[in-house]
Amino acid sequence: MPNKARATLETLYRIFTVPEAPDSTLGLIDQAISDDVTGFLQTHIVAIERNLEEIEASFASCAIPEEPTYVSEYTEFVKANLVAQSVHTAAPGFVGHMTSALPYFMLPLARLMTALNQNLVKVETSKAFTPMERQVLGMIHHLVYRQPDAFYPPWIHNSQSALGAFCSGGTIANVTALWVARNRLFAPDGEFRGIAQEGLGRALRHRGCDGIAVFVSERGHYSFGKAADLLGLGRDHLVKVRTDENNRIDLRALRAECRRLRDENILPLALVGIAGTTETGNIDPLEALADLAAEFGCHFHVDAAWGGPTLFSDRHRSLLAGIERADSVTIDAHKQLYAPMGAGMVVFKDPTAVSAIEHHANYILRHGSKDLGSHTLEGSRPGMALLVHAGLSIIGRKGYELLIDLGIERARTFATMIRQHPDFELTSEPELNILTYRYCPRAVQQTLTEAPTDQAAAINALLDQVCQLLQKYQREAGKTFVSRTRLRTARYGEEITVLRSVLANPLTTDAILTSVLTEQCEIVQQQEIPALLQQVEALCNFR
Amino acid sequence: MPNKARATLETLYRIFTVPEAPDSTLGLIDQAISDDVTGFLQTHIVAIERNLEEIEASFASCAIPEEPTYVSEYTEFVKANLVAQSVHTAAPGFVGHMTSALPYFMLPLARLMTALNQNLVKVETSKAFTPMERQVLGMIHHLVYRQPDAFYPPWIHNSQSALGAFCSGGTIANVTALWVARNRLFAPDGEFRGIAQEGLGRALRHRGCDGIAVFVSERGHYSFGKAADLLGLGRDHLVKVRTDENNRIDLRALRAECRRLRDENILPLALVGIAGTTETGNIDPLEALADLAAEFGCHFHVDAAWGGPTLFSDRHRSLLAGIERADSVTIDAHKQLYAPMGAGMVVFKDPTAVSAIEHHANYILRHGSKDLGSHTLEGSRPGMALLVHAGLSIIGRKGYELLIDLGIERARTFATMIRQHPDFELTSEPELNILTYRYCPRAVQQTLTEAPTDQAAAINALLDQVCQLLQKYQREAGKTFVSRTRLRTARYGEEITVLRSVLANPLTTDAILTSVLTEQCEIVQQQEIPALLQQVEALCNFR
Repeated sequence: MPNKARATLETLYRIFTVPEAPDSTLGLIDQAISDDVTGFLQTHIVAIERNLEEIEASFASCAIPEEPTYVSEYTEFVKANLVAQSVHTAAPGFVGHMTSALPYFMLPLARLMTALNQNLVKVETSKAFTPMERQVLGMIHHLVYRQPDAFYPPWIHNSQSALGAFCSGGTIANVTALWVARNRLFAPDGEFRGIAQEGLGRALRHRGCDGIAVFVSERGHYSFGKAADLLGLGRDHLVKVRTDENNRIDLRALRAECRRLRDENILPLALVGIAGTTETGNIDPLEALADLAAEFGCHFHVDAAWGGPTLFSDRHRSLLAGIERADSVTIDAHKQLYAPMGAGMVVFKDPTAVSAIEHHANYILRHGSKDLGSHTLEGSRPGMALLVHAGLSIIGRKGYELLIDLGIERARTFATMIRQHPDFELTSEPELNILTYRYCPRAVQQTLTEAPTDQAAAINALLDQVCQLLQKYQREAGKTFVSRTRLRTARYGEEITVLRSVLANPLTTDAILTSVLTEQCEIVQQQEIPALLQQVEALCNFR
Repeated sequence: MPNKARATLETLYRIFTVPEAPDSTLGLIDQAISDDVTGFLQTHIVAIERNLEEIEASFASCAIPEEPTYVSEYTEFVKANLVAQSVHTAAPGFVGHMTSALPYFMLPLARLMTALNQNLVKVETSKAFTPMERQVLGMIHHLVYRQPDAFYPPWIHNSQSALGAFCSGGTIANVTALWVARNRLFAPDGEFRGIAQEGLGRALRHRGCDGIAVFVSERGHYSFGKAADLLGLGRDHLVKVRTDENNRIDLRALRAECRRLRDENILPLALVGIAGTTETGNIDPLEALADLAAEFGCHFHVDAAWGGPTLFSDRHRSLLAGIERADSVTIDAHKQLYAPMGAGMVVFKDPTAVSAIEHHANYILRHGSKDLGSHTLEGSRPGMALLVHAGLSIIGRKGYELLIDLGIERARTFATMIRQHPDFELTSEPELNILTYRYCPRAVQQTLTEAPTDQAAAINALLDQVCQLLQKYQREAGKTFVSRTRLRTARYGEEITVLRSVLANPLTTDAILTSVLTEQCEIVQQQEIPALLQQVEALCNFR
């Protein structure tokens, strides 16, 4: 590097050329960052000395720097202001969201992916990555649909079709599924050239209906709301069906909603079943939903973004029985396939389904080409499929089975700890590896079962505040982490605030789970929480 | 590693723990892959010994392996079947698509990003990455809109709004822009609760119109067709306006199309201006489009996915005059900001615009939170913004200016080479760093200017075949690469097949450009091409 950072052609050429010797700038920076990341990973979940507003001060200017900066100087900035202030999502005590430790081999392979910088939209910029991604989609299709071996050869590398679409994440996967469903519902038909060509307004007129609706339980992921907005249905027509006491869709309520909308001249577009709800990890009755979808003549989509990999487990696979009858299934690889962030997939039972959203251009995606971009919502895309391919190959079906079984077992253990603890209340039983609970001493639980509605409501409102503060202080302390949400539970009939724990990190031990509860018991003795709990106690004693 | 790859808890724990010593498995694999990538980068653009069908054989099985595989074994597989069969998109002779060499610092930083595995959808899984991404959006907003310094502080870290959205690429960026435009056109109004809530059918009825249309030139990117389909407009209402002799939108034709649709009771939703068309790199008259959008009272979007970074150049910035009047602008970071694949952005002039697509959930994206996911189409997303932040910081405005100026200069040099060559015809002048041309000897060019229509058409049809084969054989030879497309040119009035060259790699030299043409002159003497050229000659002599 020159003595002073200056933008010259020479420095430009230098930064675009990969340094070769092992003691080169690249090696040194690599080492500095590796050391730092290792350090970062060992110390904490989140640094506590700076709050978000202080961190924002390091990223306050909207002016692009005029002059270049040395890479070494920038690296120092990143270490101090970004790495040190990030969240250690891989920590074994970070059991609040759907992130986990990554298998170590993901790191060199992710670097390889970046170095090759393939663009999967077209074969001309990806070549071998194209069949590799198609194989990954085939493997996920096989995991879900278990078609006989003879089914796959005509489809896997067929330019006219695709077994699914690789996406940046589950949201795009869910949107793609409903997009395909919508375009198939309004397929070309006589004079009508199809919704893709003529639009939703004319499509509704062609079918003589006033709208189309998607049905999902109230535990459905927020991406369905986005999809309903984006695809022109409107959020009014995303029908959020109430759930039973196990957070599963209430089939009677679903049937009633379907009838109600039919009476309003609204066509059912799709039923969505959830295999692993985001908040509680429960699984809808997929067989029954498949029956209903067949009865209503509509698309059946399963959002298995979280729970799909349960299919790896001989012991637990049956929880998802019926998923093989779905027209489309979403699975996120950056969740329980343990790939880094940015890898989702949707697979379609019928390999010709994606032709409903097929598109072409003159310079790429030409008719008959094997360019993957003809059947995806996204355009240019990185070769993330490599990291899924690596996981499936290196960990194997049996390795993933171990991970799944381990998570479910650990969730059961944690549920037992919570149930046996005098100060906590389990608010949803773990069906997979997610559970919810709250701070609620046993005596209060007892009172709540007997109290009149408004007394119970007042107590629960106070406990909601406790829960919210507890989660906040624990997050800020940076030692362990759980998330929080609001759920309507069968027990109380109304929405309450609960803590949410996701147990997908194989490095999370029982001792860590114990320490999560211990820390929470300490936190409730701090700041304004004791005063809130005194109010709870007063309400309990007042009958 | 154990002697035999087996799925045991012990091996699981091992793969989830980052090895520490420098001679660890991780280091060895890293080294093997690095060596291999370096080797790969030095040898060829694409390996020639295996065609796509042969490569597919390595990725043929849809069965997920039962047992685990050793990381070392998998690495060998990847080296032989994936790396060796990939496309060297960073080669200086790869001048056919919008990929380029990456600045070397992108590699360690991409690895850092993977290791931290932040999820930008919410602060709880990203912390410092959230303000960092907001700063990047602020910088791009400033690059486009040049608002005074005092404009930014109230907005940059404001939880209620966003200066733009970070996306996986330009397609999602363009879709997001038109989604926002659509939802603002049909905003809540009295009894009508807005399109997001009530859907497109009711929205059209509320405004008493039969549809909504987007106008873009026939050079518009294919993502607008997807957007028109997805958002419910229908492709019929993506109006592809004809271009003038410089591949820029014909304003008179645009005005006529607008009038025609008004007469059909179709509302104009948006005009799209292109700053750097994908195929020819031309820039629409943005000032005039801004005037027209104001006159029609519709959204003005500029797709500057490719050409946006021209704003870095003092010399060439004026080509984009008027972009600062756009309601929304798309810029891809994985194009001329030289970030790896998977980084696009859309910025909005009005920071409150994105509230039209705002959404919430109970467990994240709560009202008032700074979670970035409230205003994006995608959900969980990786911290790609780091790589854009790094580019802007390390390369700086002046460094990017050099890159832009260099590319435009090189395109002009290449255009001169083509113009002076007796066997090639320049089919579009480079306005930025993209040009098109074809193999067409000077005598044939001369004949074409004088020939009657059907003779010219017959000659052009033969030249189309030559062009297609030439591009194919050059790609297969794997030494240099240009792409091809079909364009309607002013000179011939009909679509012809042309070669397309994108000059954005600073390592591409004039000597390499000479060798591209030399290789093409050799290729036209091979296989069935001479016979085609004899037919051309015969047609030229037959008057």
